[in-house]
This record gives sequence, C-alpha cells and structure tokens, in this order.
Amino acid sequence: MNTLQEKLFAKLNEKEDRMIQLRRYFHENPELSFHETKTAAYIENFYEGKDCIVKTNIGGGNGITVDIVSGKPGPTLAIRADFDALPIQEDTGLPFASKTPGVMHACGHDGHTAYMMILAESLIELKDELTGTIRILHQPAEEVPPGGAKTMIEGGCLDGVDHVLGIHVMSTMELGEVLYHKGPVQTGRATFKAVLHGKGGHGSTPQDANDAIVAASQFVSSVQTIVSRRINPFDTATVTIGSFDGKGSANVIKETVTLEGDVRIMKEELRPLVEKEFRQLLNGICEAFGITYELDYQNDYPVLLNDEQTTEMVRKAVSQANIPEVTGVVDSGAQTPSEDFAYYALERPSCFFYVGAHKKGTPIYPHHNPKFTIDEDCLLISAKAMASAVLYYLTEGV
Amino acid sequence: MNTLQEKLFAKLNEKEDRMIQLRRYFHENPELSFHETKTAAYIENFYEGKDCIVKTNIGGGNGITVDIVSGKPGPTLAIRADFDALPIQEDTGLPFASKTPGVMHACGHDGHTAYMMILAESLIELKDELTGTIRILHQPAEEVPPGGAKTMIEGGCLDGVDHVLGIHVMSTMELGEVLYHKGPVQTGRATFKAVLHGKGGHGSTPQDANDAIVAASQFVSSVQTIVSRRINPFDTATVTIGSFDGKGSANVIKETVTLEGDVRIMKEELRPLVEKEFRQLLNGICEAFGITYELDYQNDYPVLLNDEQTTEMVRKAVSQANIPEVTGVVDSGAQTPSEDFAYYALERPSCFFYVGAHKKGTPIYPHHNPKFTIDEDCLLISAKAMASAVLYYLTEGV
Amino acid sequence: MNTLQEKLFAKLNEKEDRMIQLRRYFHENPELSFHETKTAAYIENFYEGKDCIVKTNIGGGNGITVDIVSGKPGPTLAIRADFDALPIQEDTGLPFASKTPGVMHACGHDGHTAYMMILAESLIELKDELTGTIRILHQPAEEVPPGGAKTMIEGGCLDGVDHVLGIHVMSTMELGEVLYHKGPVQTGRATFKAVLHGKGGHGSTPQDANDAIVAASQFVSSVQTIVSRRINPFDTATVTIGSFDGKGSANVIKETVTLEGDVRIMKEELRPLVEKEFRQLLNGICEAFGITYELDYQNDYPVLLNDEQTTEMVRKAVSQANIPEVTGVVDSGAQTPSEDFAYYALERPSCFFYVGAHKKGTPIYPHHNPKFTIDEDCLLISAKAMASAVLYYLTEGV
Amino acid sequence: MNTLQEKLFAKLNEKEDRMIQLRRYFHENPELSFHETKTAAYIENFYEGKDCIVKTNIGGGNGITVDIVSGKPGPTLAIRADFDALPIQEDTGLPFASKTPGVMHACGHDGHTAYMMILAESLIELKDELTGTIRILHQPAEEVPPGGAKTMIEGGCLDGVDHVLGIHVMSTMELGEVLYHKGPVQTGRATFKAVLHGKGGHGSTPQDANDAIVAASQFVSSVQTIVSRRINPFDTATVTIGSFDGKGSANVIKETVTLEGDVRIMKEELRPLVEKEFRQLLNGICEAFGITYELDYQNDYPVLLNDEQTTEMVRKAVSQANIPEVTGVVDSGAQTPSEDFAYYALERPSCFFYVGAHKKGTPIYPHHNPKFTIDEDCLLISAKAMASAVLYYLTEGV
Repeated sequence: MNTLQEKLFAKLNEKEDRMIQLRRYFHENPELSFHETKTAAYIENFYEGKDCIVKTNIGGGNGITVDIVSGKPGPTLAIRADFDALPIQEDTGLPFASKTPGVMHACGHDGHTAYMMILAESLIELKDELTGTIRILHQPAEEVPPGGAKTMIEGGCLDGVDHVLGIHVMSTMELGEVLYHKGPVQTGRATFKAVLHGKGGHGSTPQDANDAIVAASQFVSSVQTIVSRRINPFDTATVTIGSFDGKGSANVIKETVTLEGDVRIMKEELRPLVEKEFRQLLNGICEAFGITYELDYQNDYPVLLNDEQTTEMVRKAVSQANIPEVTGVVDSGAQTPSEDFAYYALERPSCFFYVGAHKKGTPIYPHHNPKFTIDEDCLLISAKAMASAVLYYLTEGV
Repeated sequence: MNTLQEKLFAKLNEKEDRMIQLRRYFHENPELSFHETKTAAYIENFYEGKDCIVKTNIGGGNGITVDIVSGKPGPTLAIRADFDALPIQEDTGLPFASKTPGVMHACGHDGHTAYMMILAESLIELKDELTGTIRILHQPAEEVPPGGAKTMIEGGCLDGVDHVLGIHVMSTMELGEVLYHKGPVQTGRATFKAVLHGKGGHGSTPQDANDAIVAASQFVSSVQTIVSRRINPFDTATVTIGSFDGKGSANVIKETVTLEGDVRIMKEELRPLVEKEFRQLLNGICEAFGITYELDYQNDYPVLLNDEQTTEMVRKAVSQANIPEVTGVVDSGAQTPSEDFAYYALERPSCFFYVGAHKKGTPIYPHHNPKFTIDEDCLLISAKAMASAVLYYLTEGV
Repeated sequence: MNTLQEKLFAKLNEKEDRMIQLRRYFHENPELSFHETKTAAYIENFYEGKDCIVKTNIGGGNGITVDIVSGKPGPTLAIRADFDALPIQEDTGLPFASKTPGVMHACGHDGHTAYMMILAESLIELKDELTGTIRILHQPAEEVPPGGAKTMIEGGCLDGVDHVLGIHVMSTMELGEVLYHKGPVQTGRATFKAVLHGKGGHGSTPQDANDAIVAASQFVSSVQTIVSRRINPFDTATVTIGSFDGKGSANVIKETVTLEGDVRIMKEELRPLVEKEFRQLLNGICEAFGITYELDYQNDYPVLLNDEQTTEMVRKAVSQANIPEVTGVVDSGAQTPSEDFAYYALERPSCFFYVGAHKKGTPIYPHHNPKFTIDEDCLLISAKAMASAVLYYLTEGV
Repeated sequence: MNTLQEKLFAKLNEKEDRMIQLRRYFHENPELSFHETKTAAYIENFYEGKDCIVKTNIGGGNGITVDIVSGKPGPTLAIRADFDALPIQEDTGLPFASKTPGVMHACGHDGHTAYMMILAESLIELKDELTGTIRILHQPAEEVPPGGAKTMIEGGCLDGVDHVLGIHVMSTMELGEVLYHKGPVQTGRATFKAVLHGKGGHGSTPQDANDAIVAASQFVSSVQTIVSRRINPFDTATVTIGSFDGKGSANVIKETVTLEGDVRIMKEELRPLVEKEFRQLLNGICEAFGITYELDYQNDYPVLLNDEQTTEMVRKAVSQANIPEVTGVVDSGAQTPSEDFAYYALERPSCFFYVGAHKKGTPIYPHHNPKFTIDEDCLLISAKAMASAVLYYLTEGV
C-alpha cells in the first residue's frame, strides 16, 4: 500500500461521521428530479473556501462540477454522484426520515453525494501529492428522463475529461462486496404511451360502436411476439405494458383505452428494431380494428456500457487496495434497471460499479420501495473504493 | 267508437294539463331506485279519498297497488307505471329540471307515472260503467337489479291478476306512433365482475412477476368466441367487457386487473349457455396463465316476452280507437335494452308497448343521456292508448 | 277438390313407380356439377315426342327448359328441379348405389329431377285443361358456385316468367310434412382463401424468420370479432375458418399458411359489411406482422328470399289440396345452408319450399353425408305438393 | 514445436489425399441415423490389422470405439466423430454426390469420420511415442433423438475416459479459423406434438360444433408469453410451433388440429420451467374452449456445456501448434442448434469446437441445405487441430 493511499484512507476513516451526517441531512431534505435547488446550494456552499474550481448550474440545470487540479501532468478523471430523490412517501420510521411528504431518497443518491463530498474534501487536502485533475460531477435528475447527465454533458462537464467513474450503493447486494461487470451492464430504455380511440356505445348494440378494449387486448397479445419472435434469443429485451386504462361502465362499450409501458434492451442495435416492430404492430392492429391512435414513444437512457479496460482498472485498483471493510470484489452480472450514467459512457471510456449496502440477516427492500434503506457502513466503503480507483488511475492509468 | 271510450278520452283531454304538471313535479324531484320514498308518498296521497283500494309498501319496498273494482264480473287487468330516476346529472336546461344534483328522470318514468295517475283517476270516475277490476301497479326501482317488479310480485301484486300491460315512452321513436312487438321484445341480461390476480414486479424482470394485463387481454380475445362460435347464428346474444381496469405504472408489471361487463340474450335458453362458457373461458385462461380470480356473475332481468294474443289485443284496441293524436300503430321490432317488466310477463300473459316521444326535426337524445327529454304530447297519447287497451280488454278480452 | 287436381293426382299415383325408377337411374349415374352431360341428354330424350317446347344448353351449360303452353291466357310459372351430384364416395349399401366412384347424389337432386319429369309429363297430358304456361327448369350445377341458376338466367330461362317455385327434399325433416318459410329462408354466402407469406427459418433463430403461423393465429382470433362486435345481435352471420394449412417441420419456422373459410349471412346488407371487415382485419394483421398475403374473396349465392305472397299461395294451395300422404304444412323456420335458387328469387317473386324425406325411427344422415338417403315416398308427395301449387297458381294467382 | 507434433503433422500432410477420398466415399454412400450398418462395417474394416483395440456395436447400435493404448501412464482422452447422414435429396451437382436418393451427408459428418480415421491411423503409427490412452468414438445417429451418444455411453464408451473432445466442420464459418466457446455453447432441446380435438360441424351452425382451429390459434398466441414473460431476459429460450396442421374444407368447422414444435434453451434450469408453462398453457386453453388433447412432450438433447478448463486447453493447444493452414483461433460465441455431444459433456469435462469450412467469396449454404458443402481443406485443418489438442493434453493435461 502506498503512503498516499494510507493518508487518504486515514482521512476518510476520520471523516466517516461527517459522511453519515451529510447523508442524513440529504435524506431528511429530499428534492425531486429537476427541482433540487436547495440540495445544489448546500453542495455549493460545502465547497466554499476550499482549494478547488466550482462551477454551478451546468447546462442550465442544478449540476455542479468541482475540479481538483494538481497542477502536475496527468489525465483528467471525472467521478460522478447523483443527488435527486423520488416521488415516494417514506415508510422507514427512521429518525432522519424525509421531512417532505411524498418525496424520499429511496435510491441511495443521498449516500452517493455524502461520500463524494467527503472524498472530494480529502482529495483537495492531499492535492499537492496528486497528479492530473479530478473532476467531481454532482449530478441532478438521474431518475427522470431525459436525465441530468445529458444536460451536464451539453453544458460541457466532460470537456477535457479522459475517463468517468461512478458508484451505486445497492440495497440488494451484500455489504462488504464491491461489484463490477464488463461490457453492457444496465439496460437501455424506451417508454411509450398509446391512446386508442374507438367509438363508445351501448353494450347491446356493438354494431354501432367500436370496442377499444377488444382492439387494445389484441395489441397486448401481439406485442408479446416482439420478444418471442423478433429478438435473437441470445439478446436481451423486454416489452411491458404496465398500464391498461380502460375503466368504464359494465354495459357501455369503451371508446378510449390508454396503454403505457416500457422497453428494455441490452444492446443499442435492438432499440430501433423494437421501436419499428412496436409501431408496426400498433399501426397494423389499429388499422385492422378501425381504431385511431396517438403514440408517444420516447427513447431515453442508453445501454450502459462499461469499458473493458477501465473496468479492469477499477477491479484491480479496489482488489489491490486491501480495504479492510471489503470482503470481495466480484462480478455483478448485468443489471436490468437503466441509468443515465450511460450517457457519460457513450462519450468517454467509463466504469459504473456497485457497493453492497445490505446487512446480512435483515430484510431486503429493493430500490424505490417506501422501506428502502442502506447500511451506512457502505458510505466509507464507497469512499475508499472510489479513492483507490482514483489513485490507481492517476498513477497507473487504464 | 263506444260511448264509454268517448267519455274517458274527454276526461283525459280535459286533464292533460294536470298530467303535464304531475310529470314536471316528478321531474323536478327525482329519487334513485330503492330510495323513492317521497315519490311513493306523493302518489299515495294523490289517491286519498278516491274510490279505490290502495296498498302501499308492497313486498317491503316503495311499491303501490291501486285497485279499481267495478263490482261487475270480468277479468282483472294490471297496468304498470314505474317511478324511479337515474344517477345522472341533468343537462337539459329545462325550467323544471331536477332539483337534486346528480339525479335525473332520464328515462321517462316521470311521464309514465303522471299519465297513469290521471288515467287511474279518470277510470275511477267512470267505475260504474266498467266491468272486472283494474289494478294500477306503481312500481319502484326499474333501473337497478334485482328491480322493483320482482319485489312487488313477491308481495302479491299479481294475485288475482289475469293479464298485465305496460307502456314505455321512447325518445328514440316518433311522436304519434304507438309501437308493439310480439314475442321476445327486450333482452335478458347478466352482469359480471372478474378480478384477476397475477403478481406485480418490475417491467425488466418479468420472470419474477405474473402479468395480469397479458392474461386479461387473452381473456378478452377469447370471450369473443362465445358469440362467434357458441351461439346459434339465428339467436341473439352479446357479451361486452365494458371496463378493463388495469391502470398502473408504465414500468411495473400489473398485479391486478378488474374486468366488468354485461351479457344480453333474447332467449332464456341462452342464459345458462353463455354463463357456462364465460365461466369455463375465464377459469381456463386463468389456469393457463397461473392467475387467480374472483368472479361475481349476476343474472338479472329475464327476456321480456310479449304474449302473442295479448299483444294482438293491444294492437287492435289502439288501432280501432282512432286516437286523433296517433299517426300509426306499428311493429317496433325487438329492442336491445332490458326491462324488469319481464318479471310480470313470466307470471302472466302480458304486453309491454311503446309510445313515441320524439318530435320530428329536433335532435334525438337517447335514454340515459343527460340531455334526454320527451315531447310532453306523448303523455296524452300514452293515457289514451292505455285507456283504449283497458276498455277493449274489459269488453272483448284477449 | 277440383276435378283437374283429381285427374292430375291420379296420374301421379299411377306413375309413382316410374318416378322411383327414374330416381334410381339418376342415383346410379351421378355427374358432378358443370359436367352433367349424360344426365342432361337423358332428360332431353325423355321429352322427345311430347307436346312441349324443349330448349337445351341454356346459357351455354347443361340446363334445359320445357315449356308447357296451354294456349289459353294466364301467367307463366317456372318450376325448378336441379340435377347435379357431389364429389362424395357413397356408403349407403343401396342396390342402386352410385356406379361412379367418388360421385354421389347425396343431396336428393336425383329425386327432384325424377318427380319433376313425371309431373311435367302428367301436366303435358292434361295440357288442354290448363291455362297460361308452365316452364320446367331442369337446372345443372346447384352445388358449386357460381351455380347453374345464374347461367340459366343469363341464358334467358326467366324470360316471360312471372313467378318461380322450387322444392327441396330433406333428409332432416319428417316424411309427410311440407314446409315453408316466408322471407329470408336460406343464407347468402361468400368463400375465401387467404395465403399468408412470412419467412421461413430455423426455430432457434426466430429473429431471422417471420412466423406465418403466429400471424395467422392472431388473425383467426381477430376474425371472431366480426360476428361478436360488428354484426347487429338481431342479425345472422357466421365467419368460419374451416382450413388452417400450416403443416411443416417441428423445428422450422413456417413461411406460408393458407386459410380457407366461408361466410354466411341472412341479409344482403351484411355482405359488404362482413367483406369490408374481413379485408380490413386481414390487411391490418398482416401489416402488423410484416406479412404479405393474397386474398381471394368470392361472394357467391345470395340470401334466398321467399316472397311473402307467393309463399302464402303455396301454403294455401298445399293445405287445401288435402294430399292424403301429407300430415302437415308447417313453417320450417330459416335454414342455414345456401341455395342458388336464390338467384331466381332475386329476379321474380318466388317460393322455395321443403318436403320431408326422413322416415321416423330411422337414423338421420344429413345432406352431403356418405350415408345420405331419402325415403322414396317423398317423391309422390313432392309431385303432388308442386302439382297443387301449380294448379292453384294458374287458377287463383298469387 | 516438439518433434512428435512435427512427425504427426507430416503424416497428416502425406495422407491428406486419402482423407479426401474417404470423405468422398462416405459422401457417396450416406446412411440414415440408426441405419448406418455399411458405414460402420467400412470403418471397422479400416482398422483391421492395425495396432489398436476395436469394439463394435457399442450399446447395441452401430457405434465403434478404437483404443490406442500407449502402455505408458497417462490419462485417457476420448475424441469423437459422428457418421450418420440426413433424409435430404442432394442438390450439389458434385461428381461424388450421394448415390442414395433422398439421403445426403448435408451436415459434414462424412468429413468428421474421414479426418478422424486418418488421424487415428497416424496416432497408431506413432503409438510408441505417446503416453496414456486415446479412444476414438465413431458415433452413429447424431441427427435423430435420442441420438447415438446416449446409447454409446450406456454401452460403456466413456468407461475409463477422463475428458472428451469433438469437432464440427462448419459451412457457415470461414476456412482457416478454428473456433471455440467456453460454457454453454449449443442449446438444449425439447420437441412436442399436441393434438387438439374439438367437434366438427357445418360452418353455418357453429353452436353444434367446437372449432379446434380457434382454440389452437389462441394457444399459439398464448405460447408467445413463455419467452416474453416467463424467461429471465438475460437467458436464452425459444418456443416454436413449426407445424399447425388444420387443413380441411372451407365450410366445415375443423374437429382436429395437430401442432408440432420445438423448444431451445441455453440453461438446463430453463427446461422444466418451459415444460411446466407449456403444459399449463395448453391445458388451460383447452379447458377454456372445451377441447380435449394429447400431448407428447419429449426432452431430448441437453445444453452442450464446454468445460472452461478443457476448452482453454484446446484453445492454447491449437494456438501454440502454429498450424500453417490456421488463420485464427477465435471465440465462436454460443450456437443455436443442438448436439448430442452434450451427453458426453454431461459425463466428463469436454470441449466441442469448430473448424471453418467455408471458402471466402463462395455462396454460403447452411447445414441441412440440399446444396450444403464443405471446402475439403477443412479436413486437414480438423486433423491437425485435433492432433495438437491430443498431444498437448497427453503431455500437459488440462
């Protein structure tokens, strides 16, 4: 273990309580995506007077970049933490539970921001011993398309950056583990809303009406064939119609049905294929039944691709760091959710990796659940794991 | 034209204004099915002091019978008028529009009751010239199963009755016409509510969930085969799923779907056939998809069967009466809605016939529409049409 | 009973044996539709030397007309008997079973022709006592669209004709009964053949193929909605896909599926409606699945409409004739099969009626069954029933 | 390069012409699976007088094992070549095309057997320089379940064997490449045949029939949900209904439909899941429609799992051999077809790998195509690739 890492880990150990306090502050004061003004102000304020370059309102949103410039030659590494919360009513009973009704940090972004701020502060304190540049990306609006990453990139947050790293704490993975996966690691996504218009009428005179429920039901059946017959069985895709709103009166033929759903893919090549088939099926079925429709089909987050070499670098760095709290550095396999970190990975070789946050023997509440929580020991692990990757990167490169 | 009819028609002409006032009073003061206490009290009060036998609270509901007993030999004829209103917010702009928000006489029952009270009063006044007995059935709760007719029959309203007649004023038929149809004239009905339970889950992990929308959609498709493949093409049946409540989040696999709908048939033999097929399809499809369900399947109004001879009697009576306001006595064909008059027709040879209430050149608003209205000229026509049928029946029989 | 009828019936009684012999001759020597050259020659030969006007090869087919011209004023009545057989291997074991393998009189046309020839001969013998003109229509090709009736009409067989009558002997109706129905009595029909082309491929690589079985199956489901949702429940229609030819290898995705089926309607207004919906559904479903198709949709026989007055005339005539072998003259109700007699009924007021041919207590083999047979007593009944209608018509008119 | 390998390669170079002649002999004289008696006799005869232990009729079939026993210590390696042909009419126009009508070596097994015989002969000639034991598996009946591998294993062909290797020449892969894949490399399979029995009837009277085409079509739609909703999107499965035999008459409701198809999976855990869902869907849909059925569902070839270490050994061996004709040793990715080599891989750590047989610039005809052919240069490559793996294995182990 090199001396610099020892110093950095020592700082992090020391500051663990503050990490936890910061996390609890953010947890108590969650803000919805695209509305995180107080959170952004709080972060900005934190860096005041510190030896770094802070830029706010990146791309016109609430994004912040913090540059730690060593002044010595070397690459620029961006490390990202997101800070938005979700429209969920917290049900954890924690003493520091959300004070805002219906809004909750139910995905761990409070933890991301807390560990990152303390890591940044520690790196600033050791700036003279560093090389190259570290850019902290404090990102808003991960949860809601189009997402904050896109805006921040448009605002120039990757200018001069060579590689990007990010961590997600995971309530579904064991505390102590740091997890990575090379290649496609989180799905790309599209969401859709289709409104089908038939013609209402009395149930006893179907010939004068046009039953939108019948047409929409045939569409639901037909849509199953995208995955069953159009996708290479070695590829990954799902098409879910999560909402079929055709509520009406028992004896009245339904005029309008609204379908909403989403698409997940694990290869960008599948995106246009699924969209084309979806549109073709909807159009054909509606023509078959004499139904008109409006379709809003939105492609949002890309497939998140972990660069092989960058990920291998992270794996090695965390493994060699011998972090006492880490019990294993393992392959997570691919994950089904989507992530707007994917936009960074489109622009630069990147690695998005995971830190387990579930204490063995306690019930698992998945992300976005009202009882979601993390074991706060994951904060120090996140800080050290990212720290070791940063130091390895600056000295060894990818 | 016989002298008695002349006298009766003269009385009805004279009392037309009161008919209209009565109708407007009921229109302003509508009451929902099974809750028509003030309407019943008003009717009861009307008969006070008149030479007739009034029984109230028939079968424990709000039903009233009024017997006009001539004392001379002859059959007993029941004539029925219903008096309940609908849960609809009136939108006619009439000066005598409903004073009760969300409740409206949108089916013409106000008119039925008004003409019937005046006809009854007139018959009472001419009682000495009549033979046999006339029983007025003032019936509540036609609109809502199980319906007021059933209760009144259980309460004995048909005891001693030989035949039953009823009129419906129709906003969809031309003013001046009196209409009849022999045989099956209005559909029998069943209603159902099926709740399908799958298992919720994230759209990207369908293998951990069980998509209730997919199963319910297959059921909707399958249900079409009842009419297309199970019913004799010469018979009449419909199965409508009017409500498909599967509203949820776009990216969450839906756990529960609620389907509601109704069944119409034109032959009682079809009722058990459709029910059996419906249950078999639902059970089979749910088993196929590993879905549990609850089904509430309610058979309600029977097919309304107009007795051939009784209907021919009505046709002849109204035709021969030469009612000046009547432009034609014509076959209406069968009608798709259901009617609880059907219960009387199961018990006694009966005829349910129609009086046009739509003034040519004005827009047609169908029954149960917030703008539904009747041309009040139909009241006198109804009174005279029923009067002529009563007199013919008492003298000529069926 | 009038003297002329007595004479005619006496002749028919006398000639009953010859009727039966003729029927057996035709039964032994069946010919397929549009290929009945020997049958036509046999009929032509029968009339040789008789006092009537014979025309052959009517409309370019095998049709024959035989005019019995009284020379006295009066209307012209056409009476029709068809003479083609079916591509069925007889399995009756009768001593006079078909001598032609795979061809059989399995619909009773042999009986129609036999009774008609004897009736014609008898009428010719009594020609001086007749009025007006009787035209016998010996018609080929009833079984196969476009049918012989159409060709004969184009060939002028109805020129100068006022009314048309026809009889069908029925193995499904009781011997002794003569049956009629006013209005629409047999369905109109269309037949279709749709070939769906997807793209073949290996079962394990569906993404490179396009599964025609999946698309065709969705079409079969969708087609159910024509009857369930597009047809007035008081109307009569069926759409049957009788053939789904998608036979292939278990592990090869099927490239081509051929669907064949037919449509029945009881009102000509439904014909374009069903065709439009069918085409729209097929086109829409195929577009949805990226399938190409060819559709051959053939409207053939019209709805057979029995003219009210002509049918009433037949009913009265047969009832009043007091035919000793006839036990009842009753309403048959509408019948589901189609008949090319319908073309005559489009051109002239017509009546097509039925003569029971099933002996009580014996098994019923329906028409087109390899064991189909008729009780030959129905031949005399047919002759007398048609005879009584002819005489009544000539003297009383319609 | 060690001297032994040099000697072996020299022998193979020398004998290349005989390899090609052998291959052409087998190509001209193909025999169907389970009927390869002449082929087996020919192979047996080849080894006569050679210094090896030949066993025939292994497991009661046409299988042959040839043991080359060095007498020195060391492991036993089985290497397999299959020798059955396919029921396909050859359409290559080759001078040595099949002389048996309707039977063809359209999968390259002729080549497998030819290179293996020459390799075996060469190894026998160098026996004194070898260690351990080499067992040649000349296997019949790869193409038809249950397959020859199963029988040979039951017959003891793996007794004493430590590892198994096999090669498939591939017309779809480039000549010069040797290809491997670690882990699941070819799919497991099940095949099914379901016969659905409804009730026949006339198209115009559906109420008296039960339309098997309608039920089977709903089943086809429902079956799509196995892949779309029941399989983890990261897993691989297909369910294909390759044959829908519902051919009949256009106007007759179909009584019986026969469905045939197959299932592919890339993980044995999916096998019971797919079978359970398939059975549940079929049973439920048939119950829904009142249809009876028989189902024959056969699980056959397992997922072929290439052992990680054995495959790495092959990769290294072939790479280090510097075979002049080999342009690359690359990962083939997983392949969709199934292989009964999978049974060996269930019993022993095994590797099944591929040798490209397609000459660039010529059209590709896939396996099982009537125009299928291989570039015969692939024979020498196969022999050398397998030779290098054998030698590496015997000296270095896995």
